[in-house]
Order: sequence, then C-alpha cells, then structure tokens
Amino acid sequence: MSAIKQLADNEVFRAFATYVAVVLLKMMLMSLITSYYRLTRNVFANLEDAIGHVKGGDAKKYVRTDERVERVRRCHLNDIENIVPFVGIGLVYTLSNPELSIALLHFRIFATSRILHTIFYLTPLPQPSRALSFFIGFLVNASMAYATLRSVSYF
Amino acid sequence: MSAIKQLADNEVFRAFATYVAVVLLKMMLMSLITSYYRLTRNVFANLEDAIGHVKGGDAKKYVRTDERVERVRRCHLNDIENIVPFVGIGLVYTLSNPELSIALLHFRIFATSRILHTIFYLTPLPQPSRALSFFIGFLVNASMAYATLRSVSYF
Amino acid sequence: MSAIKQLADNEVFRAFATYVAVVLLKMMLMSLITSYYRLTRNVFANLEDAIGHVKGGDAKKYVRTDERVERVRRCHLNDIENIVPFVGIGLVYTLSNPELSIALLHFRIFATSRILHTIFYLTPLPQPSRALSFFIGFLVNASMAYATLRSVSYF
Repeated sequence: MSAIKQLADNEVFRAFATYVAVVLLKMMLMSLITSYYRLTRNVFANLEDAIGHVKGGDAKKYVRTDERVERVRRCHLNDIENIVPFVGIGLVYTLSNPELSIALLHFRIFATSRILHTIFYLTPLPQPSRALSFFIGFLVNASMAYATLRSVSYF
Repeated sequence: MSAIKQLADNEVFRAFATYVAVVLLKMMLMSLITSYYRLTRNVFANLEDAIGHVKGGDAKKYVRTDERVERVRRCHLNDIENIVPFVGIGLVYTLSNPELSIALLHFRIFATSRILHTIFYLTPLPQPSRALSFFIGFLVNASMAYATLRSVSYF
Repeated sequence: MSAIKQLADNEVFRAFATYVAVVLLKMMLMSLITSYYRLTRNVFANLEDAIGHVKGGDAKKYVRTDERVERVRRCHLNDIENIVPFVGIGLVYTLSNPELSIALLHFRIFATSRILHTIFYLTPLPQPSRALSFFIGFLVNASMAYATLRSVSYF
C-alpha cells in the first residue's frame, strides 16, 4: 500500500486531520464575525470599504474603530497565537507515532478549549473563564511538544 | 521505495508543496514592503529603529504610525488569517489522498485569489474587488476542509 | 515498515520535528511574557480582565496600553510572521527529501536567529542587531522555498 494511502488510513492522522479542520474552520469564522460587525455598525478599516456602504454622507468618518469589532479581532489574534502552535506541533506529534487514545485526548481537549475560549471572549463572561480555557489549550500544545521531543528529538 | 521518497514523488504532494511555497513567499514579501515604507517615510515602531535612520534630530518623533504602513500591515495580517488555514487544511487534505485535478484546482484558485487580494489591497482598488478575492480564497479553504472531513474524519 | 514508522525514524523529519517544537514553544512563551507584564503593570485589553485584578477602584482606567506590553506584542507578531513560513515551507522542504546536513543547517540557523531576535527585541539592543537576526531567518525560509521549488515543483 502506498505511503499516502497508509497515512489516509492511519487513525491518529485521521483524528489530527479532523481536529485541524475543526479548529481552523472555527478560526475562519472569526473573519465572518468581524465582517458582520463592521457592516452592521458601519465601522471600517479602509476608506474604500466605507464608500459604497455609507451612501450620501461623508464616508471618511466611518473609518474608525469600535470596541465590539476590536474584541472580535483580539479573539481572532489569540486564535492565531494558539492554533498555529497546535497545527505545527500537532503535525510533528502525529507523525512521531503516538498512541491513538492519548493523541485523541490531546486533540479533543484542545478543540474544546478553543471553542469555549471564543464563547467566553465574545459573550463576554467574567474571568477567569477565558484565562482557564486559554491555559488548557496552552498546556495541550506544551504536552504534545514534550512528547515529540522525547520520542524523536534530533538536535 | 521509502515513504518520504514516495511523498516527494506524489503529484498531489508536489503541487501542494509548490503552492505552499508560493503563497508563503508572497506573504513574506509583505515584511519587505512594510520595511520599505517604514524606511522611505521615516515611520518607526521602536525608538531604536528611528535612532540611526534619522540623524541629527529628535528620533522620538519618528516613532509614529502612517496610513500607508498600516495598510500594508492590515494586508499582511489578512494573509496570516487566510494562509494559515490554507497550509493547515491543505496539508491534511493533501494527505487524505484527493484526486490530482481537483486538488490542483483548489491550490491554483487559492494562490491566484491571494495574489489578487494583495494587488487590490495595496493599489487600492474600489470594493468589492478585494472582498471578492478574499471570499474566493475563504471558500477554497472551506471546500478543502469539507472534503477532508468527508473522507477521513475521526472524532 | 509502515509509512508513519518510517517518517518517525527519518532523521530529516526528526530534526524538523525538533526545531518546529523549539521555535513554537519559544513563540508560545511570548503569551506568558505578555500576561506577566499585563498583570504586574495593571495594563489590560478587556474590562473583564481588569475587574478582579484591580480591587476597590475604577477598573475601567486600567483598560489601556503600555509601551512595554506593546513591545512584547510586536515581537510576538513578528514571530508569527516568520515562524508560520518556517513551519509551512520547512514541512514541504523536509518531505521533498533533502540532504540531512543541509536541512540541519537550515533548521539550526533559523531557530538561533529567532531566539536572538527575541532577546534583541525585548532587551532592547541597538539596531541593526534585531534587523540582522530577522533577515537571517528570512533568508533561511527563502532558501528552503527555493530548494523545494527546485526539487518538487508542480504547477
């Protein structure tokens, strides 16, 4: 059986592929939420965006910031800061041949922590709900990095 | 034949490698464009950057923002928000053994949409040119995520 | 031997896994440094973060920016702008079957350049120390992209 076919059949790889797709789709959703608030609140980052949406007025005054939009953008940036390590470390962890049950535990906890983080950030809920969801995802990444370095490290 | 040799010969993987290199080189170009505008316009983010470039004056007043620089930085951030999902989803899609012609279609449309997005953003062209190029790239990522989840999902 | 087992034994892949874990752990450290300065300086991005840390006062006035925090955040964003290309290009480079000694040279120089970049940025040291460390990492990414396109390109 070819190498790619073997990967596509490997359960750890399939689990990794699934959760990468889930967390990156969730991250992509942040772009849509940002657009939604920009359009409904008339808050634009560029003059050419304001022109066309704001008819018969001074488009320039709608090039401005808004706390609701900025909150979504902070949430989006926090996703990038945490999901990039998940994808990179998760990939090398997956290919270092871990046990399926342990790998699944890592992927499921990470995905759950990031979905909760978004809900807690956008609602917003009082702290430490968001801080906790952030740290759980952070620890999952650190744990996968440790497991990878233990099993395949080559400096 | 070894697994890595098989991957390096696999046409879908080779296409993915090619377009990953192309879109990430394009994204890296944004750093150079930002530096270019910072240096030619004397607009710096850090005091130590202004000192040395601005001789015989008050370097501190060149630690400031500039709409041209900010536009390039927004374009760069938008790249990150969209190219990170392309790399992550594209990888697991590639390894889920898709058909070559369909995979090539996804990769080519995505790369084209991001190159156009940059041109439209930096010129800038009137909307909805940039919004359209953004959404086409967004749909390519969503389509690859859907194909991956359909063929290898394992929750 | 299975494909994943072969990958996990391949020395180029093991080296890539190691340096991906190292640079991403370094990048994750930026989140902790940001939190440290936010908490010790009472500088928060969200009202719900300030409430609870600032007792018996007007929490709202601690939702503010601070140059030390902003410096760490710029360093973090610069990491994202450069480590994302390293992970993406480095992966397809690794799987394009390069020579071990050359691959190791790329990975080691990149990791060193990014660790130095962080030290130079946060100290801060006078320029061009930081600019040089940035460009060395940039050139490593460009070199891996070139090697990948030369050996496996498929447009």
